[in-house]
Amino acid sequence: MRRFAVIGHLARTDSGFTLEDMPGGAGRMDILCRCVQSVLFLSHTIRRDTEVYLILLGPPSPPRTILFSGEKIRYLSPDERSAGSLIRRALSLPPSPYFIESTPGVYIRSAGLDLLLHEHAFAIADEHGEDIRCADPLPLAYLLSDHLDFTPEEGAILDPLPRYSVGPLPLHADHAITLIHNELDRRGAGWP
Amino acid sequence: MRRFAVIGHLARTDSGFTLEDMPGGAGRMDILCRCVQSVLFLSHTIRRDTEVYLILLGPPSPPRTILFSGEKIRYLSPDERSAGSLIRRALSLPPSPYFIESTPGVYIRSAGLDLLLHEHAFAIADEHGEDIRCADPLPLAYLLSDHLDFTPEEGAILDPLPRYSVGPLPLHADHAITLIHNELDRRGAGWP
Repeated sequence: MRRFAVIGHLARTDSGFTLEDMPGGAGRMDILCRCVQSVLFLSHTIRRDTEVYLILLGPPSPPRTILFSGEKIRYLSPDERSAGSLIRRALSLPPSPYFIESTPGVYIRSAGLDLLLHEHAFAIADEHGEDIRCADPLPLAYLLSDHLDFTPEEGAILDPLPRYSVGPLPLHADHAITLIHNELDRRGAGWP
Repeated sequence: MRRFAVIGHLARTDSGFTLEDMPGGAGRMDILCRCVQSVLFLSHTIRRDTEVYLILLGPPSPPRTILFSGEKIRYLSPDERSAGSLIRRALSLPPSPYFIESTPGVYIRSAGLDLLLHEHAFAIADEHGEDIRCADPLPLAYLLSDHLDFTPEEGAILDPLPRYSVGPLPLHADHAITLIHNELDRRGAGWP
């Protein structure tokens, strides 16, 4: 199972945003939508053995964690609005400390980074980390940030975790995810 | 200069579509918007030495070619709606056989693949091609298709062109672009 988690530092934690303004009023929710797309989509199919956690930290009631399961997902298309619509639907549910399903394959809980890090061992996608092409073995779970750096509080929690870089230039989170997938795909298929 | 070109086989060639239905009524324009994003965006900046051509072949008046210039582009954000809005603006101009500017860094002309292939030497991004990690030298210009395969007519024109693969699995065009950029970025920076 491959896992990705993305922190949305400003991402709204209620359903009171419109799909027409995800970069603005929804707190850069567009970034999280593109990450869902890059985690889950192959051409004409879904990566079933993969899941993505979105950690939403914006107003009014952070944290919320939304899980998209590649194995169970339905009603998801590759465009940003499609993911945004499923996120908004999840955020319309009443708060729950454990994951509850909002639509098939989409789950939400009122918890954040701390709990997720207790459940799964993540590496950090970080431009100053070890080159993923040189790392052996390569982890199967990665944490990324949106357009903002990790906060000092997050940094303190994340400090012990291993860090891996996808290339020499700073990239959007969804592009980094595509590159991590590719490296894992290649190793799985015996490609160089 | 890096160049990418993407064929949108169903993409509308007038401005009569809404940004709320780019996958449907606009003929998978969402794919082209994500390609613009993956061609032009680094984290917090634009790839100035890069351009992308969108070849629109849908109704009502194909072909149209829209050029986004990384050097000149303005008013472009990473979300799909932003690129879609600039595409729609370009499509609202009267037909012209040569490129005319619709907004800063965005140009449109009433021409298609044939003319573009006469102007620039493209390679094909093709899952059956040579692995880009093994190719030396690696071309700087790539042609991709949307969710549909190249047509037989296109295939006949494209048959002599070199083909390169980004990995063992069939990917969305925007993901393939990210992988090509990464390979070129790595070589430019002396990374493995």
